Amino acid sequence: MIRVAVVGAGLVASHYAAGLQRLKRAEIEPYGVPLAKFKVIKDYVEEEVVSAYDVDANKVGKPLSEVVKRQLEGVVPVPPDVPDFEVREGVLASSGAGLDKMFPVRGRDQKLPLKEAVEEIAKEFKSDNVNVVLNLISTEPAEPFGDEGKLAKALERGEVSAGQAYAFAAYLAAKDSGKPVAFINLIPTPLANDPAFVKLYEDANSLVLGDDGATGATPLTADLLEHLAERNRKVRYIVQFNIGGNTDFLALTIPERNLMKEKTKSSVVEDILGYDAPHYIKPTGYVEAIGDRKFVAMDIEWITFNGLVDELIVNMRINDSPALAGLAVDLVRLAAALLEKGVKGTFYDVNAFFMKNPGPKEARNKARIKAYYDMISALRELGVIVE
Amino acid sequence: MIRVAVVGAGLVASHYAAGLQRLKRAEIEPYGVPLAKFKVIKDYVEEEVVSAYDVDANKVGKPLSEVVKRQLEGVVPVPPDVPDFEVREGVLASSGAGLDKMFPVRGRDQKLPLKEAVEEIAKEFKSDNVNVVLNLISTEPAEPFGDEGKLAKALERGEVSAGQAYAFAAYLAAKDSGKPVAFINLIPTPLANDPAFVKLYEDANSLVLGDDGATGATPLTADLLEHLAERNRKVRYIVQFNIGGNTDFLALTIPERNLMKEKTKSSVVEDILGYDAPHYIKPTGYVEAIGDRKFVAMDIEWITFNGLVDELIVNMRINDSPALAGLAVDLVRLAAALLEKGVKGTFYDVNAFFMKNPGPKEARNKARIKAYYDMISALRELGVIVE
Amino acid sequence: MIRVAVVGAGLVASHYAAGLQRLKRAEIEPYGVPLAKFKVIKDYVEEEVVSAYDVDANKVGKPLSEVVKRQLEGVVPVPPDVPDFEVREGVLASSGAGLDKMFPVRGRDQKLPLKEAVEEIAKEFKSDNVNVVLNLISTEPAEPFGDEGKLAKALERGEVSAGQAYAFAAYLAAKDSGKPVAFINLIPTPLANDPAFVKLYEDANSLVLGDDGATGATPLTADLLEHLAERNRKVRYIVQFNIGGNTDFLALTIPERNLMKEKTKSSVVEDILGYDAPHYIKPTGYVEAIGDRKFVAMDIEWITFNGLVDELIVNMRINDSPALAGLAVDLVRLAAALLEKGVKGTFYDVNAFFMKNPGPKEARNKARIKAYYDMISALRELGVIVE
Amino acid sequence: MIRVAVVGAGLVASHYAAGLQRLKRAEIEPYGVPLAKFKVIKDYVEEEVVSAYDVDANKVGKPLSEVVKRQLEGVVPVPPDVPDFEVREGVLASSGAGLDKMFPVRGRDQKLPLKEAVEEIAKEFKSDNVNVVLNLISTEPAEPFGDEGKLAKALERGEVSAGQAYAFAAYLAAKDSGKPVAFINLIPTPLANDPAFVKLYEDANSLVLGDDGATGATPLTADLLEHLAERNRKVRYIVQFNIGGNTDFLALTIPERNLMKEKTKSSVVEDILGYDAPHYIKPTGYVEAIGDRKFVAMDIEWITFNGLVDELIVNMRINDSPALAGLAVDLVRLAAALLEKGVKGTFYDVNAFFMKNPGPKEARNKARIKAYYDMISALRELGVIVE
Ligand SMILES: NC(=O)c1ccc[n+]([C@@H]2O[C@H](COP(=O)([O-])OP(=O)(O)OC[C@H]3O[C@@H](n4cnc5c(N)ncnc54)[C@H](O)[C@@H]3O)[C@@H](O)[C@H]2O)c1
Ligand SMILES: NC(=O)c1ccc[n+]([C@@H]2O[C@H](COP(=O)([O-])OP(=O)(O)OC[C@H]3O[C@@H](n4cnc5c(N)ncnc54)[C@H](O)[C@@H]3O)[C@@H](O)[C@H]2O)c1
Ligand SMILES: NC(=O)c1ccc[n+]([C@@H]2O[C@H](COP(=O)([O-])OP(=O)(O)OC[C@H]3O[C@@H](n4cnc5c(N)ncnc54)[C@H](O)[C@@H]3O)[C@@H](O)[C@H]2O)c1
Ligand SMILES: NC(=O)c1ccc[n+]([C@@H]2O[C@H](COP(=O)([O-])OP(=O)(O)OC[C@H]3O[C@@H](n4cnc5c(N)ncnc54)[C@H](O)[C@@H]3O)[C@@H](O)[C@H]2O)c1
Ligand SMILES: [Mg+2]
Ligand SMILES: [Mg+2]
Ligand SMILES: [Mg+2]
Ligand SMILES: [Mg+2]
Repeated sequence: MIRVAVVGAGLVASHYAAGLQRLKRAEIEPYGVPLAKFKVIKDYVEEEVVSAYDVDANKVGKPLSEVVKRQLEGVVPVPPDVPDFEVREGVLASSGAGLDKMFPVRGRDQKLPLKEAVEEIAKEFKSDNVNVVLNLISTEPAEPFGDEGKLAKALERGEVSAGQAYAFAAYLAAKDSGKPVAFINLIPTPLANDPAFVKLYEDANSLVLGDDGATGATPLTADLLEHLAERNRKVRYIVQFNIGGNTDFLALTIPERNLMKEKTKSSVVEDILGYDAPHYIKPTGYVEAIGDRKFVAMDIEWITFNGLVDELIVNMRINDSPALAGLAVDLVRLAAALLEKGVKGTFYDVNAFFMKNPGPKEARNKARIKAYYDMISALRELGVIVE
Repeated sequence: MIRVAVVGAGLVASHYAAGLQRLKRAEIEPYGVPLAKFKVIKDYVEEEVVSAYDVDANKVGKPLSEVVKRQLEGVVPVPPDVPDFEVREGVLASSGAGLDKMFPVRGRDQKLPLKEAVEEIAKEFKSDNVNVVLNLISTEPAEPFGDEGKLAKALERGEVSAGQAYAFAAYLAAKDSGKPVAFINLIPTPLANDPAFVKLYEDANSLVLGDDGATGATPLTADLLEHLAERNRKVRYIVQFNIGGNTDFLALTIPERNLMKEKTKSSVVEDILGYDAPHYIKPTGYVEAIGDRKFVAMDIEWITFNGLVDELIVNMRINDSPALAGLAVDLVRLAAALLEKGVKGTFYDVNAFFMKNPGPKEARNKARIKAYYDMISALRELGVIVE
Repeated sequence: MIRVAVVGAGLVASHYAAGLQRLKRAEIEPYGVPLAKFKVIKDYVEEEVVSAYDVDANKVGKPLSEVVKRQLEGVVPVPPDVPDFEVREGVLASSGAGLDKMFPVRGRDQKLPLKEAVEEIAKEFKSDNVNVVLNLISTEPAEPFGDEGKLAKALERGEVSAGQAYAFAAYLAAKDSGKPVAFINLIPTPLANDPAFVKLYEDANSLVLGDDGATGATPLTADLLEHLAERNRKVRYIVQFNIGGNTDFLALTIPERNLMKEKTKSSVVEDILGYDAPHYIKPTGYVEAIGDRKFVAMDIEWITFNGLVDELIVNMRINDSPALAGLAVDLVRLAAALLEKGVKGTFYDVNAFFMKNPGPKEARNKARIKAYYDMISALRELGVIVE
Repeated sequence: MIRVAVVGAGLVASHYAAGLQRLKRAEIEPYGVPLAKFKVIKDYVEEEVVSAYDVDANKVGKPLSEVVKRQLEGVVPVPPDVPDFEVREGVLASSGAGLDKMFPVRGRDQKLPLKEAVEEIAKEFKSDNVNVVLNLISTEPAEPFGDEGKLAKALERGEVSAGQAYAFAAYLAAKDSGKPVAFINLIPTPLANDPAFVKLYEDANSLVLGDDGATGATPLTADLLEHLAERNRKVRYIVQFNIGGNTDFLALTIPERNLMKEKTKSSVVEDILGYDAPHYIKPTGYVEAIGDRKFVAMDIEWITFNGLVDELIVNMRINDSPALAGLAVDLVRLAAALLEKGVKGTFYDVNAFFMKNPGPKEARNKARIKAYYDMISALRELGVIVE
C-alpha cells in the first residue's frame, strides 16, 4: 500500500480520490493515466488516501467523502468508498492573502506560530505513515530560497508560503522517522526548482517532484513549438488564452497568483525554440458558468520556406481537474517506486514529462514527446518499469 | 555540385527552384528547411537544377524561368537567375487520365512505346550527370508491384504509372552509368514502399526515398495523436478537412487520385495510436480563390481521466507548396550525402521524418518528434551530420 | 387540440415527441422554440402526436414510445407519456433506393400500387382527424413537377418521391374531408417550392410550408453573409464543412441525397450577397462516433477597406435533431393558427425564417434576422401573434 | 466639398486619408464602405482632409503625408496626393496620463490654460471652414457630465478629457460662426451619450455622432447574439478575447483605458439578449508582432431544445484600422448630408448601426442587421439616400 496525504481538498483532489476508487472498482478505464499501459513495479490500486488538509472553513472538519461529493456533483458519479475521515485544518502561512475573498479561511497558524504548526503536521504525517504527499493547494505567490539556511530563518519568522510549509513538514517527518517521503508539488511554487528543498530532501533520502503539473495547453504548446522548431519554421508570435470557471481560475484573478502561472507557462517558449518569440500566455479570466471544462484559444504564426507566413489556431475544451488527477495517479506510484529504488533529491526525467517547470533549477523544458521517451528509458533502466 | 532533375514543373518545383536561388543570394533565411541549423556534409548551395520534365503543353518547351515566374507571380519575388533551359516533354504512362480536364497534355509516349520513352529519359539523366531526381508530378493512381519481374512486364505493356516510369528511368541511368542516383518521391505513388523498386535501387547502389512528402496537417496530426497516446487518452474520433485552390487540390477532386492521398494521410491514425480510432481524413475540396494557402480544420475528441470528454479543434492556413519545397532543399542534399556514405535501397530514418508513408513497406509511421531525434542520431552516426 | 401525424419516426421526430411531453410537464424550458416568448393564439401544449409512419422494419409495428426511447437513450430523459400507438408502415415510392444499406426496409407500395397506398394513407389522415403533417423522412432525391397534371401522371406511374407521396395524401385528406390540413415539409424535397403542390393545397384551403428546416450552419451563414454585405465587404470565398454521426448524415453519404442538401445549403450565398462568391458548402462526411452533435467548420475571407483581406473561422458543435424539433414545435402551432386565419397555399413570411429554401418558387433567401422581424410583423397583422 | 478635420493622426486616420485618395483615384473598390452601393446625396469624393491634430511629438509639425506614409509602410501603397500640410499640436487635457510611456507628448495646454487652448482650436476650425471633425485619438478615461453647467465648470478647471475638449472646440466654432459642424466620435468617450454635449450641439444646430466606432468583434457579437435570441436559445456564457499589435492595443494595456472599451463592448450582451448572460469581453493584450491584423477568439455556449448544450467558437483575423476608416468614409458624408437636412443634436438611427455604444444616453444596442434596415429607411425618409 502507498499511503497518500492530500494537501488541498479541492477539485483535483476530489477527482483523484473519486477516480482512484472508480479505478479500483473497474468502473472506468485508466484513460488519462499516462503509464497505464506499462507494467510499473507499483500498481495504482495500491494507492490509498489516508489524510487531507485544507483551510476552507467549509471543508475543514467535514468528512472527505462529503467534500468530494459536493464538488463532483453532476460531473461524475462518486463511489461510496471514498474515505470519510475528516479533512484536517492546514496552515495559511504567508500566502493566505486574498483567499478570504473566495471562502472563509482558517489555519492552525492563526493560533500557533507557523513553525509549531508545521511541526504538528510533520508529526501527523509521521504517525499516519504517509509515503507520499500530494500538494494541490491554490496557486500562491512564492519565491525560491536557494539555500537551507535562509529557508530555516524564514520559517522562524513565519515567512514561507503554505506550499513551502507543507514541504518542510514532509521533510521533517522523513528526517525524524528515518523513512523516506515523497512530496509531489503540482502547483507553481518553486520546490523542485529550489536548491534549498532539493538539498533537504536529499539529506532525508527523500524526493521532491515538481513543479506545477503539466496538463492542458502548456505541454501541448511545448509539442507544437517543437514541431515547428524541427522544421526550422520561425515563430512570429504565439498567443494563448485560458479561461475557466473553477476556483483555481478564480484564484488566478488575483494578480500575484496569476503571475506565478504566467511564469511557469511562458518558460516553455524560449526553452523549446531557443529564442524568445513574442508571446502572450496566461490564465486570462474567470467565468463561473464555464465550470471546470476550460476554454483555451491559441494563435501561432510562423515564417515558412520562401518567406511566406503560415498560421495555426487551436481551440480546446479541457476538463481541467481530471487531467491533473490522472497524472497524480501515476506520479504517486512512480514516486513510491523511485524511493524504493533509492532515488533522492529530485528526478528530472520524471519532472520533464509531468511538470510545467521541471526541477532542478538548472533544468529546462523540452518537448514532451521527447521527454516521454527519455523518461521511459530512465524508468526501465532503474527497474521501475518492467517489461 | 549536386545535379538535380525536377519531374513535374508545378508549384512545388517552382518554389524549390526560386527559393534555392534566393537562399544562394541570401535574400531569405532558410526557414522551413529542417536541418538548416545543423552542419551537413553537403550544403544546399551546392544544389543545382539541371533539367525539368512536364506534360502540360503550356509548360513543355518553355524556359523553366518563365514557367516559374508565371506560377509565383504575386506570391514571392522570383530572382533573375532561375535556370532558363527548356522544360522537356515527359511521359503520361497509365496515369494521364483526367489531367486533360485541367490542361492540354502531351507526352513522349503518345508517339513512342512507353518503354522506349523511358529509356530515352534514362539517357538524358545519364548525359546530364543527374545525381538526384525530384518527383513532383500530380498525384496519380498507382499500385505497388512487389517484385521486379512484374514491374518489368508491366513496363513492356505500358502499364506503369508516370511516377513509376520516371523512377525506372532513374534506375536505368544509374545501372547504365555505374554512378548512383537518388530518386526522391514526394508524391503518394508507392515507390519506397514497393519492394520491387527498393530492390532495383539497391542493385544499382542507388537510393529511393519516399513516399509522399510530409507537410501540413499529416505530420502535425501524427504529433498530436502521439501527444494524446502518451497520456493514455482514448481518442473517440478524429476529423480532418483540407481544402485548397492550387492545381494539386484540383487533381484531387478526381476520385482515384483522392483515394491515394486518403490512404497515406489516414495510415497515421492506427500507426500511432495502436488502434483504429474512427476518422475522416482526406483532401476535401477545391475552391480556386483559396489559392496555395490551404485551409485545414480538425476536430478530435478523447476520453480523459474519470471518463470525461475533452475536445481539440485545430484550424490552419498553410502555404502548401513552399512547405514541401523547403523539405526538398534538405532531402536533395541528404540524398547526395547518403549516396556518398554508401547507403542504398531506401533509408527509413530519413523517410520516417520527411514522408507521410515512409518506406520500406513493413515500416510504420511514428510520431514526427520522435522520428526527428532518431534521424538526427542516425545521420550523426553515418557522418552525414557533423558537429 | 392540434392533431399531428409524424412521417419519419427518426431522431428529429423522437426529440419532437419527447420534448413536447417534457414541455407539457414543465420539465424543460422552451429553449430552442423561437416564438416561445410571444403570445401565439395556439399554444404548443395543444399539440398532440396522433400517428407516425416509417419504412424501417425495425420501427414499423413498434410502439412509438419504444422507438423514441431507443433513439434518445443516454441523450435526454424520455418521459413516460410519449404516446405508445404503433408506428405505421409508410411508402417507399421512388426514393427508397439506398435506404436498405442502412436498415431493412418495408413499404405498402411493395404490395400495392403506389397510388392506392397513398389513398390508404389519405384515409387514415382523415379518420385520425389530422390537422398537421410533419414530414421528417430521410433526405431523398426529388424534382419539382411544376404543374398538377404532370404530378398526377407521375403518381399513376409510381414515379413520385416518398415526400411527394405523403404530401399528396395529406392534400387528398383535406380535399375529401373539406377540413384544411397543413403539411410542414422539413426536408429538402421541393414542395413549397413546387407550384404544383402549392396550387393543390390552395384548392383544398390548405397550407404547405417548406422546404428544409433551417437549423445549424445554414441560417447562421445567411446572417454572417448579410453582416458582411451590409458593410460592403467583398467575400473572396466561403467554405463550410459539416460532419455528423446520425443516420441523416449516413443517408447523405449517398451522392444523390447529398446533392439535394448541397442545393438548399448553397442557395443562400447568391441570394444574400447578390453575387455568387466562390464556395464549398455541403454535408461532408459521416463518422458514427460524432453522434447527433455534429461538427461544423467554416472559413470566410473578404476584402475590407483599402484592399486588405480579413478572415473569419467558425467552428460549431450543434445538437442537430433537437434544433429542428424545436422549430417543429413552433411550426405546428403556427400552421394551425394560419389555417384558422384562412391562409392557404404557402406562406413566405414563415418559410423565410424557418426554412433553408423558402417557398414559393420565386422567393429567395433573406438574412434570417430580417426574416424574423418581417415574420413577426406579418403574424401580428394576421392576429396570429397577439400582444 | 466636405471639409474634414482629423483629430488623432494615428493608424485609422492614416487609412482614412490614404484610402480616400485611392478611392478618388479609383485604385481601390469602396469595399468596407457600407453605403457605397446606395446613392447618397453627398458623395465620398467630396470629402477632403483640411487639418490634423496630434500630441505625439514625433508627428506634430510633420507633413501629414509623411506621417501617413510612415504608418502604412509595407501595409498598403500610399498615393502621392495625401495632403502635406503640417500636423498641428493638440491638447492633452486630463487624459494624457500614461501616453508618455508610448511616445514623447506635447500639447498646447502644457503652456496655456486648457480653456484658452480649446478656444484657439475652435478658431482654427472656424477659419478652416471645417464641416466635420473626426475624433480618432487614443482611447481615454472619461465620464459624462450630464449637464452643460458641469461641463463648463470642468473646462474652467482643465478637468475634461481631450475628446471632450475637442468636441467643445467644435461646438464653439459652430456657435461662433453660425455654421453647423458635425463631430463624429469614434472613440469610447461618452459624447453622443452625454446629454450635456447633445444639448450644446442642438443649440448650435450641429450634430454629434457616437460613441466608439463599431468594427470587428462587437457588431458581429451583436448579430450572433440576436441570431440566438431569435431562436430562444439560452446563452450560458460568452467569452471574447481580442489581441493586437497596434498602438491602440498598447494604449489599452493601461487599465483605465481598457475599462472604457470593456464598457462599450459588454453593453451589447444585455441590450440584445434581454438578460445579462455571464461574459468576459475585453481587449485582452498586446503583442507587437501581430500588428494591425488583430486576433479575436470567441466561445459561446447555449441551451437548445430539450435541454442540450450547443457551442460556437469564432476566430478572426481582422485588419483593425481599415475597418474603422471605411466606416469613417461613410459617416463623414452622412453627417454632412444630415446637417444639410437640418438634423441636429444626435441621430440614433445612424449611431445604432455605426457605433458600439449608440447615443443618446437612453438608447440601447440592437442587432446590427436590424439597425441597418432601420437606418436605411430613416435615411430614405429624410432624403439622404435617394433611389
Ligand atoms: N489541470 C489542473 O487543474 C491543474 C494543472 C496544474 C496545476 N494545477 C494546480 O493544482 C492546484 C489545485 O487545483 P484545483 O483545481 O484543485 O483548485 P481548487 O481551488 O479546487 O482547490 C484548491 C484547494 O486548496 C485549498 N487550499 C488553499 N490554500 C490552502 C492551504 N494553505 N492549505 C491547505 N489547503 C489550501 C483550497 O481551500 C481548495 O480546497 C492549483 O494550485 C492549480 O493551479 C492544476
Ligand atoms: N505540400 C505540398 O504541396 C505537397 C505535400 C505532399 C505531396 N505533394 C505532392 O507533390 C506533387 C506536386 O504538387 P504541386 O503543388 O507542385 O502540384 P502542381 O499541380 O502544381 O504540379 C504538378 C505538376 O506535375 C505535372 N505533371 C503531371 N503529370 C505529369 C507527368 N506524367 N509527367 C511530368 N509532369 C507531370 C503537371 O503538369 C504539373 O506541372 C503532387 O503530387 C502533390 O500531391 C505536395
Ligand atoms: N437539424 C436537423 O436535424 C435537420 C435540419 C433540416 C432538415 N432535416 C431533415 O429532417 C429529416 C429527418 O432527420 P432525422 O435526423 O430525424 O433523420 P433520421 O434518419 O433519424 O430519421 C429519418 C426517418 O425517416 C424514415 N424514413 C425514411 N424514408 C421514409 C419513408 N419513405 N417513409 C417513412 N419514413 C421514412 C427513416 O426510417 C427514419 O426513421 C432528414 O431528411 C433531414 O435531412 C434535419
Ligand atoms: N477598428 C478600430 O481600429 C477602432 C474601432 C473602434 C474605435 N477605435 C478607436 O479609434 C481610435 C484611434 O485608433 P487608432 O488605431 O488610429 O489608434 P492609434 O494609436 O494609431 O492613433 C491614435 C492617435 O491619437 C493620438 N492622440 C492621443 N491623444 C491625443 C490627443 N489628446 N490629441 C490628439 N491626438 C491624440 C496619438 O498620438 C495617435 O497618433 C482609438 O481610440 C480606438 O480605440 C478604433
Ligand atoms: Mg527548472
Ligand atoms: Mg511503409
Ligand atoms: Mg424558393
Ligand atoms: Mg446609449
